Parts: sequence; structure tokens; C-alpha cells
Amino acid sequence: MIIIGERINATRKTIARAIEKRDAAFIKKEAEKQRLAGAHYLDLNAGLGKGTEKEDLGWLIHTVQEQDQGPLTLDSSDPAVLAECLPLVENPEVMINSINGEEKRIKGLLPVLKNHPQVKLIALTMDDSGIPQTAEKRIQVADQLIKLVTAETNLPVENIYVDCLVQPISVDTRNGLVFLDAMKELKRLYPGVKTTCGLSNVSFGLPERKKINQYFLVVSLAHGLDSAIIDPTLPEMQEAVCLSQTVLGQDEYCLNYLRFARAVSGKG
Amino acid sequence: MIIIGERINATRKTIARAIEKRDAAFIKKEAEKQRLAGAHYLDLNAGLGKGTEKEDLGWLIHTVQEQDQGPLTLDSSDPAVLAECLPLVENPEVMINSINGEEKRIKGLLPVLKNHPQVKLIALTMDDSGIPQTAEKRIQVADQLIKLVTAETNLPVENIYVDCLVQPISVDTRNGLVFLDAMKELKRLYPGVKTTCGLSNVSFGLPERKKINQYFLVVSLAHGLDSAIIDPTLPEMQEAVCLSQTVLGQDEYCLNYLRFARAVSGKG
Repeated sequence: MIIIGERINATRKTIARAIEKRDAAFIKKEAEKQRLAGAHYLDLNAGLGKGTEKEDLGWLIHTVQEQDQGPLTLDSSDPAVLAECLPLVENPEVMINSINGEEKRIKGLLPVLKNHPQVKLIALTMDDSGIPQTAEKRIQVADQLIKLVTAETNLPVENIYVDCLVQPISVDTRNGLVFLDAMKELKRLYPGVKTTCGLSNVSFGLPERKKINQYFLVVSLAHGLDSAIIDPTLPEMQEAVCLSQTVLGQDEYCLNYLRFARAVSGKG
Repeated sequence: MIIIGERINATRKTIARAIEKRDAAFIKKEAEKQRLAGAHYLDLNAGLGKGTEKEDLGWLIHTVQEQDQGPLTLDSSDPAVLAECLPLVENPEVMINSINGEEKRIKGLLPVLKNHPQVKLIALTMDDSGIPQTAEKRIQVADQLIKLVTAETNLPVENIYVDCLVQPISVDTRNGLVFLDAMKELKRLYPGVKTTCGLSNVSFGLPERKKINQYFLVVSLAHGLDSAIIDPTLPEMQEAVCLSQTVLGQDEYCLNYLRFARAVSGKG
């Protein structure tokens, strides 16, 4: 399971401030914390809404690469920003967050993907009409995106990480199920395709949101989720990732669990 | 999801002592605690290994029925004990724990089931050769048991609760998966059949066993587990049951979760 650390995101006030002030030490600390907590990729989002995203994302990439050489996820809705920033990334393991079914986004991103056929690509199951309410329609959007990307670029289906987009269960109790059903069916249709998930929407409007996020991650992993965009420094997420892998047979000799249990009981 | 409270079991020293001393107050308290914690059925096991099981189980039934009239699960490996004790149970919602593929057990239990076609029946996927190591062979045992019971008695398949028997993941990392795979396939073959699970084996030999049990319950519920034999008074189990149901769309308007969150945050 691939963990994408979500903390370096300009929607967080501390990150926005650090980007504006070019506070490299703060960003590096955020990078280090997430790597130590097990992040495989670090998501970098510099969308301050001030027309400086290219420079800001370029600075984030440069800053984090001074800290470590691990894989990055470039997070932008602007294909031009991605086109300019991708060449700055030194590690060939790089991910784009994200494409979706919106015509403008597709048109802008396809040329970028053609020039970078090694990238991993997060694909959101929404289009110009918004997020479809049913699992069937989300699968349709994913299906069209997968067909288009693999036909028009050299990206293999294995590089596509579909996010079936979970909506708040406080709005409709079945919203979690719609996500899980879409993901299951998509994996049946495309055995090679990967899946990912941004969790925080699921708990919108509820108290103790971290608990809901934690359990939604566990049931998603039980359904074969390949990757998640999370804050890996949260104990709830660490527990969910470690324990899920242990009970789902992905923790050889339970070694990760034994380490986890020692750390939790303070003997580690 | 049906919770079967496991606490009144003679393998626990305090329960064995209470049975021997006919300490009705202690047993009633155990019954009350579990009902308050959400147990639908109370498992009653009086197997002291002293040749007094009929009288002891009869006394347990009598004692618990003085406390409340909720459903009971009679837990014995001796068909003669079950035959004698079933008529003592007043609530028509009654469960037998358990049948399995052992010839002697089948021979002894079929006549009992013929006389009580309304019971619910826990069926373990093991036979005279022990517990099969593969999901396929456990399904074979379940398949044979289901065919035999439904052919020879009037029990509908919906009354059969198959326990695919989880073995310790400390012995083989994939043991949890074998259980989950067997359960999934069984549900595909018999859409009407129910499933259940005694959890504690999964964590045998590991530290912080309650955590492992908790997560194994969650992933099992994500795979459609219908019932579990657990200690419902444990916070770990309460959290797993409540949160799983909430994220899996089984908690209308998240009302149970809101109650749970209030209680946990001390405002309830």
C-alpha cells in the first residue's frame, strides 16, 4: 500500500504562510516528518490562488529535494503548472494529482502526459457535470478516462490511480458504499488499474472525524485500495495502515505489527 | 450485524467458579452487562469437563432467563446436552453452537435439529481431519454440512451461520485471508447463508491481542460477516462494531455513531 503524504498543501494555513515567506526550514521539516511516518510520496500543492503557482510549486519541489530524494506527487489543477514543474523533479518516480473527466483538464494534460510517459497519474471520477451520484456513473467516467489516457499517451494502465471520490456519509449514509462499490467494480473491469483515495471528505460534518477516516481507510484497504492520500503522522492513520496490513496478510511474520505494538506500549 | 456475547463460558475461571457455586447473581450480572453492551444473543457454555454439563447448562439457562428474556446461544459439543436443554429455553429465537463435519457430532445433532426446526445453527468448517488449511477445503466442508442439514431437517439455509474458522496470523501471515476468502466464496455460493466468527484465535501469540481482534472484526464486517462471537463489553469491540457499521452504510443518519462519539468524548 502506497502512502501519499498530504501535509504540504497550500490549503493549510501554515503551509500557505511558509510558501509565501519562502520558509524552507518549515517545509523541510514537514517533508521529514512525513517520510519518517512512512510516506512513500509527498504531495506538493502550492495553489495559493495568487497567480504565482508555477514559481511556488517550483520552490516547493526544490526545497523538498534539498531535504530528501524520495518520490513526489505534484498536485495542481493547472496543466501548465504541471508541464513546467515536472522537469524540475529529479526522482523518476513521480505522480500527478490529478486528471479528471473535465474537458479542459483533459485537453491540457494529455500533451504533458505524452512528454512524461513514466509518470503515475491520479484520475478522479468526476467530469464537467460534477461528481456522479452512483457507482455505475463513476465507473463510466473512470472507464472513459482510462481508455483515453492509455490510447493517447504511452502510460500503461498500471500507472493510473483512480480515486472513486468518497462523499460525506453525514449527507447520505450510503456514500461510503458508493465509493467501495465503484472501486470493487473498477478493479474487476481493469485488474491492472490502481486505486487511491483522499479520505477527509467521508467524515465531513461529523464529530471525531479522525475516527471515521481511520475506519473508512480500513474498510477501503479490505476492499483492495492500493494507495491513500493521508496525513501519515496521525496515530489513527498509522494504526489503520499497520493493523489493516497485518490482518490482511500483508505483514510478513507480523514484524511491522510487533514493532507497532512495542512502540505503542512504550517499550520500543 | 448480530452480536453473540461470549462471556458466560466455563473456560473462563470466574464463570467456572460461578457455575460450581451456583452463584446466580454473578451470572445475571454477566448477562446484564452484555445485553447493555448490545449483545443480541448470549452464548452459554457450561463445559466444566466434570460430567455435569446437562445440569450446569440447565442452571445457566434458568438463571439467565430470570434476568432477561433475550435470545440465547446454547454452546456445547455434546448433542445429548443440547437435546435436553433446548426445551428449557423460553425465547423461540435460539441458537446452537455448534455443528461441524465430525461424523459423531452430525449423527448426534441431526435428530435434535429435526425436533427444533426453528433454531439457528452455527456450523464450523472442520471435520474429523481437523481444520482444513485452504479456503477451498473449508468451503467443501461447509457445502457438505449445508446440504446435509437442509436435506435432513427443516432448517432453512438462512438459519445456518457458518464460521470459516480463523487461525492465528502469528503462525501463518495469510491465515486471516484464508478465512476472508472462504467467507466471500461461501456467500457467493449460498447467498442466503449467514456467517459468524469467533475472533480470538486470530491474535493468538501476539501482543495487544485486542487490537488485532478489533481490526480483524472490521475487515470481516467489510467482507459481509453477519454475526460475531465477541465480548461486547470491550471498548475495542464496541468501537469496531459501531464504526464499521457507520462507514459501511448501516447506520442511518449516523445516529449510532453520534451517540458513540458523545459517549467517548464524555458528553453523553
